[in-house]
Amino acid sequence: MTRGLFVTLEGGDGSGKSTQAELLEQWLVARGRTVVRTREPGGTDVGLEVREIVLHHRGHVAPRAEALLYAADRAHHVATVVRPALARGEVVVQDRYIDSSVAYQGAGRVLDAEEVRGISDWATEGLVPDLTILLDLPWEVARRRLDGARTRYDRLEAEAGEFHGRVRDAYLALAAAEPARFLVVDATLPMDGIAERIRERIAAIA
Amino acid sequence: MTRGLFVTLEGGDGSGKSTQAELLEQWLVARGRTVVRTREPGGTDVGLEVREIVLHHRGHVAPRAEALLYAADRAHHVATVVRPALARGEVVVQDRYIDSSVAYQGAGRVLDAEEVRGISDWATEGLVPDLTILLDLPWEVARRRLDGARTRYDRLEAEAGEFHGRVRDAYLALAAAEPARFLVVDATLPMDGIAERIRERIAAIA
Repeated sequence: MTRGLFVTLEGGDGSGKSTQAELLEQWLVARGRTVVRTREPGGTDVGLEVREIVLHHRGHVAPRAEALLYAADRAHHVATVVRPALARGEVVVQDRYIDSSVAYQGAGRVLDAEEVRGISDWATEGLVPDLTILLDLPWEVARRRLDGARTRYDRLEAEAGEFHGRVRDAYLALAAAEPARFLVVDATLPMDGIAERIRERIAAIA
Repeated sequence: MTRGLFVTLEGGDGSGKSTQAELLEQWLVARGRTVVRTREPGGTDVGLEVREIVLHHRGHVAPRAEALLYAADRAHHVATVVRPALARGEVVVQDRYIDSSVAYQGAGRVLDAEEVRGISDWATEGLVPDLTILLDLPWEVARRRLDGARTRYDRLEAEAGEFHGRVRDAYLALAAAEPARFLVVDATLPMDGIAERIRERIAAIA
């Protein structure tokens, strides 16, 4: 049986994660692989309820509560979706994973990044992606894209640009610390060029 | 200003926690204290949404996800309700806290008790009750009380009696490990007798 493969996409909103996940899925399916496309938060029914609390709660959510809600979503998602798919030899293409928590909660907010990672590691029983694609984009560019699409801003998207700059720096630091796991792609490149870089890397490990 | 006091009530469903919390509140108010009566899960608006997921979700919730949802509720509750009340010098009388998580999740389920406690300690930034009242009751007695009241059983209550026996053992072990924090009361005693024992202990520390 073909070995399962766990691929995560990271980057800010507007960086093109959904588009690249779709292109990657099409390419993998054409090569005969079974693909599970999923996301965090919200990749399960439990996760959808958690996502609703985190993103659309009207009042203040305490920072540690928010981190734990994301971790709960992750624990359920990994146990019921990701691990079973990998055990069947499928490819999991996932929008956001632990690196999102570390970048947004640890670097962007007031929480300790390594503590946030520790909670997530406990949630997933230590499941690490085979490949993490970081779609790197300056926030100014992402904001113009989101404005152009008249996207409704949720609570996180409404945070200041300075916050998004710190998230980007945190993502790049994570990628620099684990070059074997990360593929960093300049998300200002044309869509097809980005997809081609991703395919090359997947072909080398799949 | 009077010193804040954090009192938690623990024990299985049907052990009389709500009744004793109410009697304790009346007594404290008569002595001039301001009392905040609260509960976990569900002591805040965020917590109510979490409680809805944990107790009434139709399908399977992964054990680590359940533990993290309880911890998220706790983090938000401690940050927005408990700590502010203690800072104002009030008495917090709370139905269930970390000991519930350790007893139900750690001992009753498949998770490591000390890991579950570690997650909760992170959630609360290490907030420990001044006094924890354990209303100790054999499950058979609690079940007869609940049957008599025609209480609707939620998912946890529907678990087998063997599970509740393990929870009771876990509670007693927690109390034995921290005798200075715990007051263990035989919950088969008359209501007023239990209330009197609790008052004596509170009077000694408040």
